Amino acid sequence: MIKVGIIGATGYAGAELVRILTGHKNARIEWYGSRSYIDQKYADVYRNMFQIVDDTCMDDNMEELADRVDVIFTATPQGLCASLVNEGILSKAKVIDLSADFRLKDVSVYEEWYKIEHKAPQFLDEAVYGLCEINREKVKTARLVANPGCYTTCSILTAYPLAKEGLIDMDSLIIDAKSGTSGAGRGAKLPNLFCEVNENIKAYGVAAHRHTPEIEEQLGYAAGRKVTLSFTPHLVPMNRGILATEYAGLTRKVTPEEIKAVYDRYYGDEKFVRVLDPDVCPETKWVEGSNYVDIGFKIDPRTNRIIMMGAIDNLVKGAAGQAVQNMNLMFGERESEGLELVPMFP
Amino acid sequence: MIKVGIIGATGYAGAELVRILTGHKNARIEWYGSRSYIDQKYADVYRNMFQIVDDTCMDDNMEELADRVDVIFTATPQGLCASLVNEGILSKAKVIDLSADFRLKDVSVYEEWYKIEHKAPQFLDEAVYGLCEINREKVKTARLVANPGCYTTCSILTAYPLAKEGLIDMDSLIIDAKSGTSGAGRGAKLPNLFCEVNENIKAYGVAAHRHTPEIEEQLGYAAGRKVTLSFTPHLVPMNRGILATEYAGLTRKVTPEEIKAVYDRYYGDEKFVRVLDPDVCPETKWVEGSNYVDIGFKIDPRTNRIIMMGAIDNLVKGAAGQAVQNMNLMFGERESEGLELVPMFP
Amino acid sequence: MIKVGIIGATGYAGAELVRILTGHKNARIEWYGSRSYIDQKYADVYRNMFQIVDDTCMDDNMEELADRVDVIFTATPQGLCASLVNEGILSKAKVIDLSADFRLKDVSVYEEWYKIEHKAPQFLDEAVYGLCEINREKVKTARLVANPGCYTTCSILTAYPLAKEGLIDMDSLIIDAKSGTSGAGRGAKLPNLFCEVNENIKAYGVAAHRHTPEIEEQLGYAAGRKVTLSFTPHLVPMNRGILATEYAGLTRKVTPEEIKAVYDRYYGDEKFVRVLDPDVCPETKWVEGSNYVDIGFKIDPRTNRIIMMGAIDNLVKGAAGQAVQNMNLMFGERESEGLELVPMFP
Amino acid sequence: MIKVGIIGATGYAGAELVRILTGHKNARIEWYGSRSYIDQKYADVYRNMFQIVDDTCMDDNMEELADRVDVIFTATPQGLCASLVNEGILSKAKVIDLSADFRLKDVSVYEEWYKIEHKAPQFLDEAVYGLCEINREKVKTARLVANPGCYTTCSILTAYPLAKEGLIDMDSLIIDAKSGTSGAGRGAKLPNLFCEVNENIKAYGVAAHRHTPEIEEQLGYAAGRKVTLSFTPHLVPMNRGILATEYAGLTRKVTPEEIKAVYDRYYGDEKFVRVLDPDVCPETKWVEGSNYVDIGFKIDPRTNRIIMMGAIDNLVKGAAGQAVQNMNLMFGERESEGLELVPMFP
Repeated sequence: MIKVGIIGATGYAGAELVRILTGHKNARIEWYGSRSYIDQKYADVYRNMFQIVDDTCMDDNMEELADRVDVIFTATPQGLCASLVNEGILSKAKVIDLSADFRLKDVSVYEEWYKIEHKAPQFLDEAVYGLCEINREKVKTARLVANPGCYTTCSILTAYPLAKEGLIDMDSLIIDAKSGTSGAGRGAKLPNLFCEVNENIKAYGVAAHRHTPEIEEQLGYAAGRKVTLSFTPHLVPMNRGILATEYAGLTRKVTPEEIKAVYDRYYGDEKFVRVLDPDVCPETKWVEGSNYVDIGFKIDPRTNRIIMMGAIDNLVKGAAGQAVQNMNLMFGERESEGLELVPMFP
Repeated sequence: MIKVGIIGATGYAGAELVRILTGHKNARIEWYGSRSYIDQKYADVYRNMFQIVDDTCMDDNMEELADRVDVIFTATPQGLCASLVNEGILSKAKVIDLSADFRLKDVSVYEEWYKIEHKAPQFLDEAVYGLCEINREKVKTARLVANPGCYTTCSILTAYPLAKEGLIDMDSLIIDAKSGTSGAGRGAKLPNLFCEVNENIKAYGVAAHRHTPEIEEQLGYAAGRKVTLSFTPHLVPMNRGILATEYAGLTRKVTPEEIKAVYDRYYGDEKFVRVLDPDVCPETKWVEGSNYVDIGFKIDPRTNRIIMMGAIDNLVKGAAGQAVQNMNLMFGERESEGLELVPMFP
Repeated sequence: MIKVGIIGATGYAGAELVRILTGHKNARIEWYGSRSYIDQKYADVYRNMFQIVDDTCMDDNMEELADRVDVIFTATPQGLCASLVNEGILSKAKVIDLSADFRLKDVSVYEEWYKIEHKAPQFLDEAVYGLCEINREKVKTARLVANPGCYTTCSILTAYPLAKEGLIDMDSLIIDAKSGTSGAGRGAKLPNLFCEVNENIKAYGVAAHRHTPEIEEQLGYAAGRKVTLSFTPHLVPMNRGILATEYAGLTRKVTPEEIKAVYDRYYGDEKFVRVLDPDVCPETKWVEGSNYVDIGFKIDPRTNRIIMMGAIDNLVKGAAGQAVQNMNLMFGERESEGLELVPMFP
Repeated sequence: MIKVGIIGATGYAGAELVRILTGHKNARIEWYGSRSYIDQKYADVYRNMFQIVDDTCMDDNMEELADRVDVIFTATPQGLCASLVNEGILSKAKVIDLSADFRLKDVSVYEEWYKIEHKAPQFLDEAVYGLCEINREKVKTARLVANPGCYTTCSILTAYPLAKEGLIDMDSLIIDAKSGTSGAGRGAKLPNLFCEVNENIKAYGVAAHRHTPEIEEQLGYAAGRKVTLSFTPHLVPMNRGILATEYAGLTRKVTPEEIKAVYDRYYGDEKFVRVLDPDVCPETKWVEGSNYVDIGFKIDPRTNRIIMMGAIDNLVKGAAGQAVQNMNLMFGERESEGLELVPMFP
């Protein structure tokens, strides 16, 4: 039985960790950390967990936590994990960080995009970028995993095989992404009020969103060269889901069958990546509540571009589900344990 | 392994049966019946099931089905099950009917409210009303179960203990219910279009909704007398969920603690009924995707009324989940097998 | 040209006042009061008003305001208007208060339900309850108008003719109301976040909502006796709209035609009350953006009850529209000036 | 008083024409054409118009219509207007066609993308593309106006000044557009059901949407060369609104101030185009119910691209509002008559 501690258990990503781990056969949550709700019953904060979780929220004491659990999930704002983690902790417990602190290898890029000083750059080399489908073997032996961002998981997996195979012109890559509102977190902010989001759509963080360098770094590894791309997130009036629509010039003439074969070669054995049939466009609703990534594409001979599309549930494959997938790999569990969640429709 | 056949597998309730049974350890769907989609891949109709269900839709041949499966679910329009079922079928397979055909014991009431002739009144006596929390023992030995309606499940369970204990004046009972749109089914009808439902709320079927006599009959058994009540359904711009707000005069002075104790006595051991803490109002979102019924109440000393509130997911406890709960009882499975679905929030 | 000042111009009700007054031929807003946004451009707070309103937000100085305008709207939290208004102000400008401060004639009832001390009880007698269809003549000469609440406007107008005519048993009256989320205001509070409201419905303030005594007082005047009733508000995942479903026992046998005739007698000449054809249920979407109240009803011979239904846009007839209607009456304008807003569908 | 006939008055675009024309001082609807609802009261089809429109739906007799009205709006499926219009009709009444029949000058392009034969190619030369801000003078004298598509209006106006000025590389232009569901019309189709659209986002018509050649043709005129671009529409769970996010390489180094100055030069005097302040991103909600186009942009020095964003209400500026704007121009009315609709928020 893996003993689990969660720091930030009352944010939406933390709550999704709780939902998923509740169904995990070999994991048990020992610590529901939530600075905002210390000493309150967890089920009073998330009433869906009434009669399911009986525990009370505790503070963020990572040192004590490390003595009591096997793995610590940090579902916290940027900077917190880096400010708390140290060799002593890592020697006692594995850490899966759902924030951005250990996603970027270059500390100066982190500090430029996140506008905060990195408090633990000494662990950047060691940290493994936890995109399971790509870094599976490294994850298995990691002590510290940087769980990928929601937009990035979707954006990277959708383009990865074609980037790796040199089929798309990386200088032409444009990612237009759309996200449900849970990605904005549970903070009580005016722009996230129902009346501001409902019946509305907008772009935000244009040419400046922090997930951009993360996507660039990972697709850069795939392409074997530095990548600079356009990434535009949009806020959609729905709770869950990310759709990434990605545009790139093709480097040579290809058929849909060839592209499909490439995707199948990379993802055919992947349980959580579903390469859709030709001409089928992914919809976020078809993956809601599950750990799936659905990927489709369309070649446009008129413009010699390919339009790639990927859909995930931002709280599952984009956050908590992937974190559990990483945990399973790190502890030698079946990779899909606790994650066999059938998408809920409608 | 229970072999399952579904007639009407491509409606929303049928699809929810598929979602739930996919996670059931001892059941396997052998027949995806769908007259509208014969010979089409099930996963082409419900793409959430891509790579999960590989089967193809078949027609509604109940005779053949009975030879091949242990239990037949009929998630079909009123009249279909009654027109197909017969002694031969029931001698070979158990039938769980999600339509209204066998819910009302009095055939004349059925024919008056549903405006169709009942084709199999000879089975009305035998059929068991499958509200598990109330008729558990009878369900266990039933051949034919009438799975309750969505509004009725919520409405009955919310008032049942107080009706049974004589604490409420049954002549004063008013049920104001609100439902998500999946309750209207997947038929392509103008009133169910997104633009007609979104940003809108309305009552419908006022003083005429077909679930009324079903609620009256069951609460009549509880009260030990004939019950006539007001039931008003409303359409809410959400996919899933039913909230029933029920008003009744109290027959004597009671404290909240007494009422709570009554609810606890009836439901304290029920896994799927959660009696909320005093002053907590149920919200449909807290039960979404799960088989729970959440019940709260408030005594109003000013009017000497009690306001009871119940919330369910109409497709789970209100349809497919309850149907599987019935199946588990009928086949000696653990009652909650396949139904340990944690509510999804947000 | 009526010179208008608004205190609380950046709440949702205040913003709706701005939207409506922008189209009023004989009124001009001179003062956009908003303590939270002082010195900010109004159109930066509400970008829909970009290039329409060029003014800047000012503070809440009611004394100065009274010297500069003909009418002051206070769209502010409870207690503010009562704490600022005085004889000097009322001698210079008319005041239309959108808060509850002057709605209840009995100061003790106000203090009991609102839990604050009333700072200006000396004006309670003078204040006119601004439900135009009922108090039209009094409004015309008022200096201080108490603009009715959103739930109350809808609830009262729906039942008023039948209460006045003695056709319904006032002791049996139950009002089950459903509101869009704009009624909760623009404050950044967790329960109003998109992800908490979307795909959800709940009751709140059960047997305790502050609009209850207001409805009771006004329907009491109609019935000529003290009225105590049940009122339950619900939060619906939509921006705008209130639907009130009201249940009452009939005092004698009546036909639908008789009831329709009563409604027509009271409202036939009212521009903003639309009595629907028999068996038509109102929908909030059909009045969205307009000052209409749509009213329908259904007699239930089985229970001898009548179900009355009313729909309004909570920000228009439930707040800003009615306030402008009051202003028109007070200044001798055409009552519908600025209010000929055609409902927007879809 | 302009006498107006509408063919297709009961679709969403037709209904919006009715809503807008109801507030037009110098126009009166004489004919509510609707093949599906002949002889039914218009207000029974759209209950928001109860007590506002008293007329009854009539059939699509364009010949008779031409004798009775000054202008005919055709808000009908592709092919209908072209199959009915003729010289006789045009000699008696002006025609504003909201379908695509006369938008493309090249009949072969029309027939290729729309897969139907064009029945009146002889009028293609004469027809004026009714994008008022660009073709104002031609519209004034037109007999036959092709009212632009919803996506196209937004897409073209957003890029037009930069295309015209040669500031963007037209070969790099990518338009990622997002639309509310009213754009799909009021037909009872499964993909437009509430439960299919709500909590969901998807791309559709990828590399194949019919608005593509229309955008290409018009931006081609601006650029003075043939343009081939990528256009991807998405379906968003909201009723109204289109957001176009457009990506293009810059042809030279420019500052935000220069770009802003270009937009202001083209649109500074346009009532219905609002060029937003630097770094402000348009939101569909800020233009809802109005005839505005809101335009913003962001230069990305990292990729040397510009991201242009435009927002409209698809039923107003994207359909009925623009059609009325065209009518005003054609009849010498004030261009904004009937269109001074203040956006509704929230």
